[in-house]
Amino acid sequence: MIDTFDLVIRHADVVTAADRFTCDIGVRDGVIAALGRNLAGGAREIDASGLLALPGGVDGHCHLDQPMPDGLRMADDFFTGTRAAVCGGTTTVIPFAAQEKGGSLRAAVDDYHRRAEGRAVVDYGFHLIVADPTEKVLREELPQLIREGYTSFKIYMTYDDLKLSDREILEVLSVAREHGALVMVHAENSDCIAWLTDKLVGQGRIAPKFHGLARPAAVEREATHRAITFAELVDVPILIVHVSGKEAIGQIRWAQGRGMQILAETCPQYLYLSAEDMNHPGDDGYAGAKCVCSPPPRDADNQEAVWKALKQGVFSVFSSDHAPFNYEDPQGKKPGGKPQSFEHIPNGIPGIETRLPLLFDGVRHGRLSIHQFVELTSYRPARLYGLYPRKGTIAVGADADIVLWDPEVRTTIRNAQLHHAVDYTPYEGREVIGWPVHCFSRGEQLVASGQYLAPAAGRGRFLPADAPSLV
Amino acid sequence: MIDTFDLVIRHADVVTAADRFTCDIGVRDGVIAALGRNLAGGAREIDASGLLALPGGVDGHCHLDQPMPDGLRMADDFFTGTRAAVCGGTTTVIPFAAQEKGGSLRAAVDDYHRRAEGRAVVDYGFHLIVADPTEKVLREELPQLIREGYTSFKIYMTYDDLKLSDREILEVLSVAREHGALVMVHAENSDCIAWLTDKLVGQGRIAPKFHGLARPAAVEREATHRAITFAELVDVPILIVHVSGKEAIGQIRWAQGRGMQILAETCPQYLYLSAEDMNHPGDDGYAGAKCVCSPPPRDADNQEAVWKALKQGVFSVFSSDHAPFNYEDPQGKKPGGKPQSFEHIPNGIPGIETRLPLLFDGVRHGRLSIHQFVELTSYRPARLYGLYPRKGTIAVGADADIVLWDPEVRTTIRNAQLHHAVDYTPYEGREVIGWPVHCFSRGEQLVASGQYLAPAAGRGRFLPADAPSLV
Amino acid sequence: MIDTFDLVIRHADVVTAADRFTCDIGVRDGVIAALGRNLAGGAREIDASGLLALPGGVDGHCHLDQPMPDGLRMADDFFTGTRAAVCGGTTTVIPFAAQEKGGSLRAAVDDYHRRAEGRAVVDYGFHLIVADPTEKVLREELPQLIREGYTSFKIYMTYDDLKLSDREILEVLSVAREHGALVMVHAENSDCIAWLTDKLVGQGRIAPKFHGLARPAAVEREATHRAITFAELVDVPILIVHVSGKEAIGQIRWAQGRGMQILAETCPQYLYLSAEDMNHPGDDGYAGAKCVCSPPPRDADNQEAVWKALKQGVFSVFSSDHAPFNYEDPQGKKPGGKPQSFEHIPNGIPGIETRLPLLFDGVRHGRLSIHQFVELTSYRPARLYGLYPRKGTIAVGADADIVLWDPEVRTTIRNAQLHHAVDYTPYEGREVIGWPVHCFSRGEQLVASGQYLAPAAGRGRFLPADAPSLV
Amino acid sequence: MIDTFDLVIRHADVVTAADRFTCDIGVRDGVIAALGRNLAGGAREIDASGLLALPGGVDGHCHLDQPMPDGLRMADDFFTGTRAAVCGGTTTVIPFAAQEKGGSLRAAVDDYHRRAEGRAVVDYGFHLIVADPTEKVLREELPQLIREGYTSFKIYMTYDDLKLSDREILEVLSVAREHGALVMVHAENSDCIAWLTDKLVGQGRIAPKFHGLARPAAVEREATHRAITFAELVDVPILIVHVSGKEAIGQIRWAQGRGMQILAETCPQYLYLSAEDMNHPGDDGYAGAKCVCSPPPRDADNQEAVWKALKQGVFSVFSSDHAPFNYEDPQGKKPGGKPQSFEHIPNGIPGIETRLPLLFDGVRHGRLSIHQFVELTSYRPARLYGLYPRKGTIAVGADADIVLWDPEVRTTIRNAQLHHAVDYTPYEGREVIGWPVHCFSRGEQLVASGQYLAPAAGRGRFLPADAPSLV
Repeated sequence: MIDTFDLVIRHADVVTAADRFTCDIGVRDGVIAALGRNLAGGAREIDASGLLALPGGVDGHCHLDQPMPDGLRMADDFFTGTRAAVCGGTTTVIPFAAQEKGGSLRAAVDDYHRRAEGRAVVDYGFHLIVADPTEKVLREELPQLIREGYTSFKIYMTYDDLKLSDREILEVLSVAREHGALVMVHAENSDCIAWLTDKLVGQGRIAPKFHGLARPAAVEREATHRAITFAELVDVPILIVHVSGKEAIGQIRWAQGRGMQILAETCPQYLYLSAEDMNHPGDDGYAGAKCVCSPPPRDADNQEAVWKALKQGVFSVFSSDHAPFNYEDPQGKKPGGKPQSFEHIPNGIPGIETRLPLLFDGVRHGRLSIHQFVELTSYRPARLYGLYPRKGTIAVGADADIVLWDPEVRTTIRNAQLHHAVDYTPYEGREVIGWPVHCFSRGEQLVASGQYLAPAAGRGRFLPADAPSLV
Repeated sequence: MIDTFDLVIRHADVVTAADRFTCDIGVRDGVIAALGRNLAGGAREIDASGLLALPGGVDGHCHLDQPMPDGLRMADDFFTGTRAAVCGGTTTVIPFAAQEKGGSLRAAVDDYHRRAEGRAVVDYGFHLIVADPTEKVLREELPQLIREGYTSFKIYMTYDDLKLSDREILEVLSVAREHGALVMVHAENSDCIAWLTDKLVGQGRIAPKFHGLARPAAVEREATHRAITFAELVDVPILIVHVSGKEAIGQIRWAQGRGMQILAETCPQYLYLSAEDMNHPGDDGYAGAKCVCSPPPRDADNQEAVWKALKQGVFSVFSSDHAPFNYEDPQGKKPGGKPQSFEHIPNGIPGIETRLPLLFDGVRHGRLSIHQFVELTSYRPARLYGLYPRKGTIAVGADADIVLWDPEVRTTIRNAQLHHAVDYTPYEGREVIGWPVHCFSRGEQLVASGQYLAPAAGRGRFLPADAPSLV
Repeated sequence: MIDTFDLVIRHADVVTAADRFTCDIGVRDGVIAALGRNLAGGAREIDASGLLALPGGVDGHCHLDQPMPDGLRMADDFFTGTRAAVCGGTTTVIPFAAQEKGGSLRAAVDDYHRRAEGRAVVDYGFHLIVADPTEKVLREELPQLIREGYTSFKIYMTYDDLKLSDREILEVLSVAREHGALVMVHAENSDCIAWLTDKLVGQGRIAPKFHGLARPAAVEREATHRAITFAELVDVPILIVHVSGKEAIGQIRWAQGRGMQILAETCPQYLYLSAEDMNHPGDDGYAGAKCVCSPPPRDADNQEAVWKALKQGVFSVFSSDHAPFNYEDPQGKKPGGKPQSFEHIPNGIPGIETRLPLLFDGVRHGRLSIHQFVELTSYRPARLYGLYPRKGTIAVGADADIVLWDPEVRTTIRNAQLHHAVDYTPYEGREVIGWPVHCFSRGEQLVASGQYLAPAAGRGRFLPADAPSLV
Repeated sequence: MIDTFDLVIRHADVVTAADRFTCDIGVRDGVIAALGRNLAGGAREIDASGLLALPGGVDGHCHLDQPMPDGLRMADDFFTGTRAAVCGGTTTVIPFAAQEKGGSLRAAVDDYHRRAEGRAVVDYGFHLIVADPTEKVLREELPQLIREGYTSFKIYMTYDDLKLSDREILEVLSVAREHGALVMVHAENSDCIAWLTDKLVGQGRIAPKFHGLARPAAVEREATHRAITFAELVDVPILIVHVSGKEAIGQIRWAQGRGMQILAETCPQYLYLSAEDMNHPGDDGYAGAKCVCSPPPRDADNQEAVWKALKQGVFSVFSSDHAPFNYEDPQGKKPGGKPQSFEHIPNGIPGIETRLPLLFDGVRHGRLSIHQFVELTSYRPARLYGLYPRKGTIAVGADADIVLWDPEVRTTIRNAQLHHAVDYTPYEGREVIGWPVHCFSRGEQLVASGQYLAPAAGRGRFLPADAPSLV
């Protein structure tokens, strides 16, 4: 009996984390059924000549429709967020179900499912945020949720409503070790930031740029070293998220060189933005706020250090840390249309759609290989977050999440042409080479020639995660 | 039109440098034509259930039938060497065409082709050994040979008949940079070895174990640092071969941490042998000679450091450095059946057949992942030495060099059961888990259930190399 | 007019932090008035032929009669403590006036003066312990006390009744920077210790040796890195006290290599004791408690690392951390004569008298130079704690605190022959070469031929400290 | 019996490597006989109020009247050289008796004595330069010369007429170890320099500034690492001379951190000159030649690294490397008044008189302490080169080599006012704070109020050296 296919992508120049080969891709029931030369026909066929066929991106760090304190509101929900994701070549997102202090983790997960269902247009998993590790959370909720497919959680060493004490971190890491989950760590020293912030505000230094001075690299380095120590004591791998530069990288290299499994993530803002951008006045003297995120962007030297560490394998994951706050918005960066002290600017910048093109541009400029690109943006996050081999590669049996890239097209990033709901992009006006032109999710084409095809909201499915695969 | 296949390997648990998936492998004309579920039938079929399907090994560092000075003779020619290789899961070998001082590189290549033709049973490429970089060699022979597919060459910092001066190394590296070749460096300080050897011999300390004292780790570390400096000045990648332990690893990590493209190789002897083995008396009080190689095996701490560096990606290549000298042989380790001073023991040990099982055993013991195994033993050497994507992976379009491993079988290594022509193995009696049971070269089965099928000698083909692919 | 002297020490082989010369030492009014050949006569003369004349030791870290929580009591008051000090060659002590949580720093100082007056037999200064840095303490008490001659204070990162939060440490460092004081830091991570202790106790692992497992080197390393970061942010030197081994040393070297003024101290217990000593049963199965201190002694490798760092100048100060708790004492290590869980054993060991002979023995074994000995035990603590040039050297104008050492005498340390009031020494039975045989404090001989001369209790004077001199 | 003195320096603010105290200094027979308050009268008295009394400088690296190849000639002989030295506060010089290839070391020493006798105005020792370590030199001449008081020798890793092979270096180090001498190493890789020079010259890049490109920091770093390895193998201390910046410093720190006795020296040119200065045109477009020395001056970053390493104790010695070649001189930098290719410019710059004021200026700017100044410029070279305690300190029994510094006077360096015979200084026009105003050699005043008093040429004496004292 000879199979036929629902979809055949012909003459694909397939690139995975390791390999590159030209063949036809046969898709059946949303899954890659065959890779071969001269495959039998498909109900639908597309000619990929001249394009690269890459596994769809997996964004392992993004915030969508996350309930916020202090009257803040995220501009993107699961619909606009995943729409933007797929238009940028990302076919899987893993945002955060965040526990509130005093609240239940299970309740946060249930609530977050309600926010995703009926809205997501690509598949999604959930990380948890553990903000209040009570005995009940540690002994009941977390183990049960891990078993149900929530195998990664994030903890914070700063932010008053989220941060854990050292002791609490040790407890959470112990649970992760016992039950086989991966802990992501936001590493900045809370007390140092508070002390520096008070000093700056006391001196009247409140413009956006002072956000950077309140969170210098040493503050991130210290917390990174401390987190590494906790991981060493508990004997469990951790992932340091959104690493901003050479000080923290130095600690991570040091730990890796000793043989510890310290994983790390970085983001586009640490390659392309700098402290200078937080000092940009814009029309209203306040535009620096658009680039306020934590850890803050550093300088050219640090950007270079991040590029180098990406190339050398210090990092496992390249994520967006998409944090969709509007600029001109009472619930965003500039509430009431008025500038405010940097300490009140919501931290984070949008980037779910631009993540992949920005890094791909680095490939085109020789910064890293196309295989490293796939590894950092799709393959490794899929493995770490328990979604591989369903996601993260183009191989027989994998979901047909395939993105065809035009490696030559030049695009100037304009917020007007992005698909998120945020009113700005920090990359406005930047030109990149290469763009994802056709995007398939489980064999269904969602983007064609760069145009969003408006598939059914809610077609995206929740992905229960397997145990993390670290290597 | 529906294709059929010459060979279909059914239900293969395929592992590549990055991916793992279960499918059928369809082979046509020696090439992988399709990977898929329920592929059409093949002229021949084999059921791979329960086995791992790995790309055939690429041994990027082995010596076969290499003309030797001082009346020495290698026990393995291209026939016995490649027979042993394939019985150990290796389907591509890259031995060395060695220039003699005063001789022509071209002549060495021509001679070496004559030695290979009609004998090799698997495919082979050649590295060059540049021992006399005259102007003619640098300006004419090397550039022309690079164009013809000899894109890697080895240089020595020690051995009187092979070593280059610092100036000569700089010249060779410059040619490599200009013409796009990869230079492999044997890094030990020649003068230090000579000075230490004279001291030891002068004190009557001539037993095999003193070989290790004549070449301490600092001597390797120094030459490694020096080679890195030359690469830095010329701005060209290099590959440090057969790295023995933590001192040299320290230099390589340091260079990599600065962003230099310093690649490195290690070998089974640095994981499994130690200075103790050179002090083993055996029946004749001289058996330590069986483990004499350069750099020498170190100690348990260094073995651990090599394992760790393998896991962390410090190394790109894991090779055998197969150097087939008989033990009881007038032209080998114990000439005239008599012990001699360590300085006259030919350096090197056999290992072309045991390379992969020894490392696979490390996978089974959690030392590294199965993907890292493929990367180090097949994928990366294929890329570095310009043979990818023909070799080094299981992908559409690649040569059907496929090895089916039984991951559970326990084997005690016995020289009597190996297929090389050397009269001993340094791993006699060691038990390993996992063994390659069926081996295919371009779709032709050469080993079945562990039995060598005696294919036509000379079926192996020369592989002209493309430019090195470093990432 | 020709001067005469109260005391002339003839033919002294004088050693200072840098120099060595033979001369007579002329003392007048307790001060060194002249160094010269053939000095005029003195009212009293002593022939120092064959002995070394060293500046009296300055013990920059010792606890005497310090009020303790939990019903504990120190065995040594200022009388027995300073008696033991001078019998061991130390002529200046700097114990701690410790603030209680909720209490006033000034009150602690006043109370401590009362404890010292009328009892001390050698001169003394005070460090402060800042345990509760209220606004009043930070803005009023500390600045005023610094002006009055209390220019160094210690802070704790562990111990519930003493530890400061990160924010509090930053505040204290800021005061030190503004007013020119030196902060000494006890660097261990409190939460990690508590977490490990709970785990161990929960498993019934309560013997003294588990004290070491509850405070592994990583816990000290982490706090050291954190303290360094605080010093970097505030831009102020700090002194890491009682560094136990290579992990913390690694951080200190790293900081010094970056040009930060991170000073460090170590103690005899990190050279001579190890985790094994906490596992020593003794007669009652509990004798390991005698060696319980924090950070705990490590192992031979760490001892070696401390010796090496001493030699290389990583450390500035070598102190006793004398903490005089009796062993058989309801208020000491073994209350009620009964073993108790390690978590309740008072931390600290006696050593004020043995400090100098133990290190001098290292000089005799080539571990460090005699100049380094003087530097670490007398000169540098005098400078750092604002007592130089009054103390810390043999020079014109300095106090005549002079110790004549017999560099050849062999002594077996026996608690029965020590002069503290503690009922044991952890060094019982250890033989050392070299002992201080004649000791002078401001020209008054307190020890003669190793015999304590019983001077008037209370002859010791309080030394208000100048600003720290770091270089 | 009460002594009187030949000279009393009253109210001296004495500074040694460790101490600072105010007293009178009594000198008798050229030696310091007493330090004290209100010393008895002297035949001559001088009031040092307001001045610092420092031990006279010891210049451990300077070239005077050294026979040169290629028609070159040094401008300074022992008379002009030592005259300049003392005018700059240096009262002991240690230039080099250089063996010629093929020549005898003994002959070089004899010749050099003839050049010094009758000319030197301050005391002097000799280093040897071993350029041809024949068996006779290694087994006879060197051991005998060491016994006679030549306990330090310099070897070169570059310069065709001086450089040793790796093997020869090992042999020389072995002799140093056996007989207790200290080896100074000029560490630059000769082959790398030759290769780079040929490339540059081949491209017509011959201006003085290309001297720096022909000797990049990596070339110095490599040789430094190599020399360290040799020292490690032989197990003997070495001194790396004229370290130019952070690359070599990195290697030295690394070795010191491992506990090796790797000593290091730097010079004023690495603090105050940079590659820019070799690119300075001057009046004749060639003035950059004035700053050509080896290793070459680097850049501001490297200057900073050298300052930092000075402060941290990485360096033991601060020397001038005075190499007195005229600029406008057929036998100097610009022969025949014509510019020439950088490869022919004699390497080295004058600096014997400016060494101390340039570093003292650093003390005044807080770069290092006054004690470190004494240590680096007088105390440590005296110890290392076997002249202590005769030289290097102000202590009873030491030679009365005393320099009174005015710490406040501002001086603009002008070659016209220097006392060497060279026709330029690279520091022309630089202002420094502090200058040596009165200089005594063995109690004889040679400089008064900055004026050279023209003592008898030849009053300087040869100083046979004791064994090196490393700590």
